[in-house]
Amino acid sequence: MKAGKRNKTITASVNRSGTAKSAKRTPASAAVRAAPPDTATAGPDDKPVTALDLPQAPLSPAMAAYFAKCEEKLGFVPNVLTAYAFDMPKLEAFAAMYNDLMLAPSGLSKLEREMIAVAVSSVNQCYYCLVAHGAAVRQLSGDPKLGEQMVMNYRAARLSKRQRAMLDFATRLTAEPWTVEEEHREMLRKAGFSARDIWDIAAVAAFFNMSNRIASATDMRPNEIYHSQAR
Amino acid sequence: MKAGKRNKTITASVNRSGTAKSAKRTPASAAVRAAPPDTATAGPDDKPVTALDLPQAPLSPAMAAYFAKCEEKLGFVPNVLTAYAFDMPKLEAFAAMYNDLMLAPSGLSKLEREMIAVAVSSVNQCYYCLVAHGAAVRQLSGDPKLGEQMVMNYRAARLSKRQRAMLDFATRLTAEPWTVEEEHREMLRKAGFSARDIWDIAAVAAFFNMSNRIASATDMRPNEIYHSQAR
Amino acid sequence: MKAGKRNKTITASVNRSGTAKSAKRTPASAAVRAAPPDTATAGPDDKPVTALDLPQAPLSPAMAAYFAKCEEKLGFVPNVLTAYAFDMPKLEAFAAMYNDLMLAPSGLSKLEREMIAVAVSSVNQCYYCLVAHGAAVRQLSGDPKLGEQMVMNYRAARLSKRQRAMLDFATRLTAEPWTVEEEHREMLRKAGFSARDIWDIAAVAAFFNMSNRIASATDMRPNEIYHSQAR
Amino acid sequence: MKAGKRNKTITASVNRSGTAKSAKRTPASAAVRAAPPDTATAGPDDKPVTALDLPQAPLSPAMAAYFAKCEEKLGFVPNVLTAYAFDMPKLEAFAAMYNDLMLAPSGLSKLEREMIAVAVSSVNQCYYCLVAHGAAVRQLSGDPKLGEQMVMNYRAARLSKRQRAMLDFATRLTAEPWTVEEEHREMLRKAGFSARDIWDIAAVAAFFNMSNRIASATDMRPNEIYHSQAR
Amino acid sequence: MKAGKRNKTITASVNRSGTAKSAKRTPASAAVRAAPPDTATAGPDDKPVTALDLPQAPLSPAMAAYFAKCEEKLGFVPNVLTAYAFDMPKLEAFAAMYNDLMLAPSGLSKLEREMIAVAVSSVNQCYYCLVAHGAAVRQLSGDPKLGEQMVMNYRAARLSKRQRAMLDFATRLTAEPWTVEEEHREMLRKAGFSARDIWDIAAVAAFFNMSNRIASATDMRPNEIYHSQAR
Amino acid sequence: MKAGKRNKTITASVNRSGTAKSAKRTPASAAVRAAPPDTATAGPDDKPVTALDLPQAPLSPAMAAYFAKCEEKLGFVPNVLTAYAFDMPKLEAFAAMYNDLMLAPSGLSKLEREMIAVAVSSVNQCYYCLVAHGAAVRQLSGDPKLGEQMVMNYRAARLSKRQRAMLDFATRLTAEPWTVEEEHREMLRKAGFSARDIWDIAAVAAFFNMSNRIASATDMRPNEIYHSQAR
Repeated sequence: MKAGKRNKTITASVNRSGTAKSAKRTPASAAVRAAPPDTATAGPDDKPVTALDLPQAPLSPAMAAYFAKCEEKLGFVPNVLTAYAFDMPKLEAFAAMYNDLMLAPSGLSKLEREMIAVAVSSVNQCYYCLVAHGAAVRQLSGDPKLGEQMVMNYRAARLSKRQRAMLDFATRLTAEPWTVEEEHREMLRKAGFSARDIWDIAAVAAFFNMSNRIASATDMRPNEIYHSQAR
Repeated sequence: MKAGKRNKTITASVNRSGTAKSAKRTPASAAVRAAPPDTATAGPDDKPVTALDLPQAPLSPAMAAYFAKCEEKLGFVPNVLTAYAFDMPKLEAFAAMYNDLMLAPSGLSKLEREMIAVAVSSVNQCYYCLVAHGAAVRQLSGDPKLGEQMVMNYRAARLSKRQRAMLDFATRLTAEPWTVEEEHREMLRKAGFSARDIWDIAAVAAFFNMSNRIASATDMRPNEIYHSQAR
Repeated sequence: MKAGKRNKTITASVNRSGTAKSAKRTPASAAVRAAPPDTATAGPDDKPVTALDLPQAPLSPAMAAYFAKCEEKLGFVPNVLTAYAFDMPKLEAFAAMYNDLMLAPSGLSKLEREMIAVAVSSVNQCYYCLVAHGAAVRQLSGDPKLGEQMVMNYRAARLSKRQRAMLDFATRLTAEPWTVEEEHREMLRKAGFSARDIWDIAAVAAFFNMSNRIASATDMRPNEIYHSQAR
Repeated sequence: MKAGKRNKTITASVNRSGTAKSAKRTPASAAVRAAPPDTATAGPDDKPVTALDLPQAPLSPAMAAYFAKCEEKLGFVPNVLTAYAFDMPKLEAFAAMYNDLMLAPSGLSKLEREMIAVAVSSVNQCYYCLVAHGAAVRQLSGDPKLGEQMVMNYRAARLSKRQRAMLDFATRLTAEPWTVEEEHREMLRKAGFSARDIWDIAAVAAFFNMSNRIASATDMRPNEIYHSQAR
Repeated sequence: MKAGKRNKTITASVNRSGTAKSAKRTPASAAVRAAPPDTATAGPDDKPVTALDLPQAPLSPAMAAYFAKCEEKLGFVPNVLTAYAFDMPKLEAFAAMYNDLMLAPSGLSKLEREMIAVAVSSVNQCYYCLVAHGAAVRQLSGDPKLGEQMVMNYRAARLSKRQRAMLDFATRLTAEPWTVEEEHREMLRKAGFSARDIWDIAAVAAFFNMSNRIASATDMRPNEIYHSQAR
Repeated sequence: MKAGKRNKTITASVNRSGTAKSAKRTPASAAVRAAPPDTATAGPDDKPVTALDLPQAPLSPAMAAYFAKCEEKLGFVPNVLTAYAFDMPKLEAFAAMYNDLMLAPSGLSKLEREMIAVAVSSVNQCYYCLVAHGAAVRQLSGDPKLGEQMVMNYRAARLSKRQRAMLDFATRLTAEPWTVEEEHREMLRKAGFSARDIWDIAAVAAFFNMSNRIASATDMRPNEIYHSQAR
């Protein structure tokens, strides 16, 4: 697999103007806000990145290049990559699969793949993925409320029949995979999806069922910058 | 009941600077965004306010004053009020109960009551309430990510033991009310809550179990302005 | 809102002959009964009214009149009112909403509203509401077993299509509110319900989702007299 | 097995004075009741006994004697027996198991066995068993509200620790049998139950998990007389 | 009931060549296997038969003959019978019902009844019944993978419409008995089942809902020989 | 990533003597079996491999070598690899992640990883994974019934505290990932697992939550040979 080539496109899924956005809150506007809530910890919300004490390993050359590209294009390294960086084979396998699923050519648009990611993560109530991929839906769609709807209840979004069928399949596959049968595939076909598209819907939904659980198991924290992106 | 007096405080629960916030997105930043998603409808997301065709009734004097105050302080009338405005007794009863629960003196702070509102609405996946009260949590806390955490999974928030116990009780009462027993009240008492506080936690959680269902039954749409408030 | 006027009708929802009924068991018939069960407490089942120690506040004039009317017409004050009487604004808001929903003119008969109350309370397994409103169904219908069917499993009742559709909607809204969509409203329309009727079905179902949780959170005990009413 | 001998005791589980009770509602009291509900069928609620058209077979001598004894002692033949009477081996096997479980000597009182029956049937929302065995709890306990509590939510009953442990085990075994483990048996032992008692709790709970499903599968209707017994 | 006559057929449900099969694993093949897992106990997996210390009672003549027949035909006494043998009336009632349901003439083949047994036991995750009746499906069908499919997910089996309808009904009746209504019986009728067949489907499914819970409540262990039968 | 090197170890997870096993059933023993069941299709159970018509792509050199090694060591190519072979980047990413998780050095034995795989697949009722990895548990443990217990209900297995804690965590993470918190990680630590071990438990469980859904979404069929392996 040519990981270097895939690296070039990963930034498409995150907010290019994230750093600029993060400066938008002025001290003045902050001053009129109420006192901070009664929180148990005073530190930043995303440190440490996980609840597991796993020291970062030396980055392999491919991964060092990948992290550098993230810094250059996004302004930060997504915390899921930092979390995996204690072990290079695991990080490389994760990055390869992620980039293939979310960025490679597909009958599903990148936005559609991110919509699946968020709708699945909503079923699983995964804080990390809802934050990170909710931001991606907001940015790719240019429609901030669409990101919120994917997080909150995709049924509340006014979607095309195609996208509704896609999310119905993805969330059924998430919540009750043992009930998925030919009739559900047939509903996708009737909505215009090819066999390859059905694989891609299934594969993206399945991947986030994996990622959601890695994140929940380790209390993985999303980079704080995501919260303000593309609002 | 002196509804007029209670009206004075309702604006505390919404964003006073909402209109200013809504202008923050410049045409330039909008231009770089991707094309809008493949949505089924072209109109605004919050018109009509509900899926039920119920013409607004003439506002009673008390309600006319209430709506005017909303416009003055918030810059808009929350859509839930518009939805109820087909019948004055229903609107007045709803407003009276809402204002008492969310704004009257209590051992729970206004922020805590809004946190309960959002955590309950998350269990019920209520789009309207998550949007409107998620904005309230962001504003009252001055902590945008706290609002997101209440929406996504309150367990991911780094809360004090007091607030965690409060939300554990509220969400159990939402998801499995039949299992609530003395041991759960005792956990609240151990976290420092009085009998009156326990009533208030229960009453706010219960109220949003009602509101969530009114909103879901009618496809009630939140005012679009909420999405960008206090980010 | 003219609470005084609404008070006149509240008695329609409870058994006018309750006190007479409570005397029907003669000492003789009681004597042949088996020994009482191995219960943990010896006192009456509905004292105290809740598990929260909240002393009753002085009744406002409106609420004093309301309680007096309950005593006159029903022979007792429903315990839910006693439970709320620690705080007049809360009691008044609850009574106003309850009376509007259950007693004001509607396309739903009072019996139908009570049927919704019980079917919803069955999903939530709320002891207080099943007892109090089960009695109301028995009385309003003149059909004791209909009350039992609403408590036990509304699907076992031989209902008209209209009433079945009404209860299907109300219980779905109770158990899985996030799944309610246009198709479910359409089923109500096909069963002959107007937009206003749909609101009322939703509002009654939603209200009891609130009341059920107040009752479960506080271990609210129904007046013992309900058990023998309209059998 | 000597079925004849066991037959002598079955009547202990039903109301000996049922027929007298059924006459208690006078035409006068019926007259003041509201109109009957909007039901889909006009006939009695318990005809036919099931939704399956299975003609009754000639009763075997043992079963003829058993039915005669029911008529003599109870005033009626319980509909579950009528439902099974299309096939003598099935009726005899059912009656033998039922009578052994509910009437044979045990560390559990007959009332306790009926309490299990109703609490289990509540989890399964079985109309037939809730009606028939709810009546048995009312009669055996002399406490009408205890029957209601078993039907509605056994957690609302003020039970001894022994009986609470018994019902916690029985309902867990009903709702999530795959989670029952040594710790749950140990809780019964700590509540004073012997190995034989644990078997009996399990066996009664298991039996009603069977009966509930036979009844639900066939829409079995309880004899109407149960509704008014021991109120 | 003529229990003796029924005894003659029980062996049809278990593997006649079980003992021969159990010898198939040669010392050579065992030698290449990995070390045994890190198990908590060193003894055989099916001793004791249950977690309840209930000494076996003297077998009644009928049951002594029954056990002898099991030994002769199967080579062993199924552990469920041993578990019940602490009390002759219970053992006899269980055996009578079991043999009638699983072996008496029916519109359902013996294989179909065993398929229901396993599909139901899969919903309830009952180790004992999945092992014992999974072996029966393998043997009666001559198709080892059919047994596995019934254990794992019956929807994965390529079944006739008749058998699929049968299992859909049986598993719905198991998981959500309160939802079974006329429409579900009608689906069975359309698949060719008679009223008597519907009873039999329901009765077998219901019986295993009972047996599953007896087994789970007591940690009943299947005879080890089942694992290797009919593979 | 050096895929070639990892390929060398993959065969450890499947049965080396599979082909020999598949020949064990003689025509004679098959002859005494009952007639085949009333199945809807006459063909082999694992053709086609999935319900999606996705033609196999030319194998990349690395994948060609990998498939050849499977043939050599296992006697067949696992169907999951065939299913992914329509697209080389997807196949390579899957193989890389699978081999790292299941075969790379870890504080978890290979058997423990397979036990997690099966216990997770049991929650998700995934036919493909239960068959393929159930066989792996049987082979790696030399204990056929352990494989069955992982498939049927891992709580029925007599496990060490370490392995029980491991599976409790993995199945909670599967069924209710949103509830996993520090207390659950702490239970693993108390059972002796390191931070790295916790990651591995989570990662294997998460991976099978992905694979289960790919398989269910596509009706992926396991190679028939698995059924008879290591019995």
